[in-house]
Amino acid sequence: MGKVAALVCVKCNRRFERGEYLTCPDCGLEGILDVEYDYDDLRDSLRESPLQSRHVNNIFRYQDFLPLTQPPPGMLKVGMTPLYRFEKIAEITGISEVYLKDDTVNPSGSLKDRASAVGIAVAVEEGRRAIACASTGNAASSLAVLAASVGLESYIFVPAAAPEAKLYQIAACATKVFRVDGAYEDAFDLATEAIDRWGWYNRNCAINPYLVEGKKTCSLEIYEQLGYTVPDWLVVPVGDGCIISGQWKAFKDLEAAGVTDRSPRMLAVQAEGCSPVVRRFLGGGEARWAEPRTLADSIRVGKPRNWRKAVRALEESGGAAVTVSDEEIVAAIELLGRHTGVFAEPAGSAGFAGLMRAVADGIVKPDERVVFLVTGSGLKDPGSLKSRGLVADVGRGVSDVQRALGGRGAGDGT
Amino acid sequence: MGKVAALVCVKCNRRFERGEYLTCPDCGLEGILDVEYDYDDLRDSLRESPLQSRHVNNIFRYQDFLPLTQPPPGMLKVGMTPLYRFEKIAEITGISEVYLKDDTVNPSGSLKDRASAVGIAVAVEEGRRAIACASTGNAASSLAVLAASVGLESYIFVPAAAPEAKLYQIAACATKVFRVDGAYEDAFDLATEAIDRWGWYNRNCAINPYLVEGKKTCSLEIYEQLGYTVPDWLVVPVGDGCIISGQWKAFKDLEAAGVTDRSPRMLAVQAEGCSPVVRRFLGGGEARWAEPRTLADSIRVGKPRNWRKAVRALEESGGAAVTVSDEEIVAAIELLGRHTGVFAEPAGSAGFAGLMRAVADGIVKPDERVVFLVTGSGLKDPGSLKSRGLVADVGRGVSDVQRALGGRGAGDGT
Repeated sequence: MGKVAALVCVKCNRRFERGEYLTCPDCGLEGILDVEYDYDDLRDSLRESPLQSRHVNNIFRYQDFLPLTQPPPGMLKVGMTPLYRFEKIAEITGISEVYLKDDTVNPSGSLKDRASAVGIAVAVEEGRRAIACASTGNAASSLAVLAASVGLESYIFVPAAAPEAKLYQIAACATKVFRVDGAYEDAFDLATEAIDRWGWYNRNCAINPYLVEGKKTCSLEIYEQLGYTVPDWLVVPVGDGCIISGQWKAFKDLEAAGVTDRSPRMLAVQAEGCSPVVRRFLGGGEARWAEPRTLADSIRVGKPRNWRKAVRALEESGGAAVTVSDEEIVAAIELLGRHTGVFAEPAGSAGFAGLMRAVADGIVKPDERVVFLVTGSGLKDPGSLKSRGLVADVGRGVSDVQRALGGRGAGDGT
Repeated sequence: MGKVAALVCVKCNRRFERGEYLTCPDCGLEGILDVEYDYDDLRDSLRESPLQSRHVNNIFRYQDFLPLTQPPPGMLKVGMTPLYRFEKIAEITGISEVYLKDDTVNPSGSLKDRASAVGIAVAVEEGRRAIACASTGNAASSLAVLAASVGLESYIFVPAAAPEAKLYQIAACATKVFRVDGAYEDAFDLATEAIDRWGWYNRNCAINPYLVEGKKTCSLEIYEQLGYTVPDWLVVPVGDGCIISGQWKAFKDLEAAGVTDRSPRMLAVQAEGCSPVVRRFLGGGEARWAEPRTLADSIRVGKPRNWRKAVRALEESGGAAVTVSDEEIVAAIELLGRHTGVFAEPAGSAGFAGLMRAVADGIVKPDERVVFLVTGSGLKDPGSLKSRGLVADVGRGVSDVQRALGGRGAGDGT
């Protein structure tokens, strides 16, 4: 069990006991809380059961790093996703030791499953029967999928323009999905009202402090998969700032528990058309973006609610931040697909695009050990590749094939 | 290593050595070959390394059951997918011990990855540099994805009407995807011509005898996951007949190697609008279907090339066969989603639909131990749920939500 010692406001540092508040009463929605454990207790528990000796093959392997007493029975397998090392990616990036963490193979197809799993576990422990959120995509489908697996009701609010794959994945699994006649903000407002009205459990990653704890399991796995060592860099696509905060929290917790004595530098990647966290980190100013524009919908967040935790992760880790164009993001999907077989959605490939940019800019060095996250499956947004002209339209004759191959000779394939 | 003793024609029973032919020269494309191992050798290898003691966490755990010398380096993790037992599914089916084998979480999102992995492994061992196939869907995306991961070129031929999610997954990962101006048969013919012309390795499941061997790993896992026991029934959606043949082969191999002394009965499920294998098994006659009609595209196969192996699996296992309507298939997607969180494509849910039918017909009894396969992810064909009216369109007021909830009272969620 993870013994929660306190919840600390990221804005004013006031400390609370568990269960007092979801956000700081003084700072309001700006006062997002951070979970602190009893690290002596965690040390004891690691002495009794070292990571190396554990057999649970999902995120609840790290139960003592999580704010819950027990895994919810029956939940789909979340986490323990593969960490791959591809020669081709080393060639392309020029980094000799580079790893891809493939979170596309979680049950709902994204890293968000780690957060939802913990949110649901907490809701179940609190005796809740229903959980709700507003989202355009991965958070919602993840919530619907995992809630269904443990028999919890789920109520999901999506904007009118929700993309088809995500919408029907939600529709298949949620108790009820409401398509709100309006934009994301309208869906969010209506969800908030309905959550108050019906007393559903609020799965909103930035507001709910426990969800970031779930995300951190990704880096706990990386640490184990690297043979119980820490990489030099961890590369993370950033939207509302929850994923990067979670990864940094993992390494801080490992240090606090006496398991490690160093942590990686965090590299934040945002889209050129929506990079409030990068701007705030690099130049100060407001973490707001007036007109978010990028095809990477999962990181198209103009008002990142968790920017404080994200910027702190960058500062504390001696990290860096880059932006990438939509063109670079889509090219990264193609490079990943062609050379690894991992099919990413745009936000999912942004980390890889950002890594290439950071190498070009001299931020990441060829002899450093680097891990980049692929956070979501391309099957959730397959249309993003349409513009790339990857499909060769041919007639029914073999000469058409020859032309499309660019006149390559016979037997070339063997 | 799996020592292949012989390849046996399923039509005339003539025996060949490995490498002589891909199909029987006397029987042509009807003469599909079946792989026989040196079972004394397999017994020795199991004595040296019992299944229980193995640590490899992918299908190459079963290397001695496969026609290859070594796993291809760098391949994405295929197999070792979860086997779930959900109370709700027991309630719905009335079967107290029923398990769901979730193959939607393979790298490309379907069970076909098991076949492609072995096809690619064999191609790599033979020194091939390129592999090709024609397909509308899962076989092609699986081939493109896994070939990319090991640096093998892939050439994929799809019909003009290929669905978007599968098309762009292929496009991201394949060396080249050709969209042929015509139907599946035109794509198939052109692929065959191009394969001859350029000498690419032929990944065609029915023709290539090694691919069914890959599929069999699914049942080897089930055997292990059930605590080294055999279920009473295995429920399998059937298109060209390769998946059910592979599952049956797994249990036959386990018996031949002296590991087990019984095998499950196989339950074949096809769509009402395309059930040539079921018809052939139940009533004899031709295993052909003039006008295949079902929304389950992955099992919409009017001329199943592997019907002989499939019918033999049913006969030898004392099995049974049922058909289900498209309505039942889509209802099964919804039931699975709502009560397990596993989001299936139509062909993927057909097994569950068929199980419910078989229980209703008294074929499967409530006290029997049953496993059903979910063969492909719903993200590959999310539109199949459109007709179900699962999405509640609402305005921006909480009264709209109340109406959509059917007037449920406040606080009901907690």
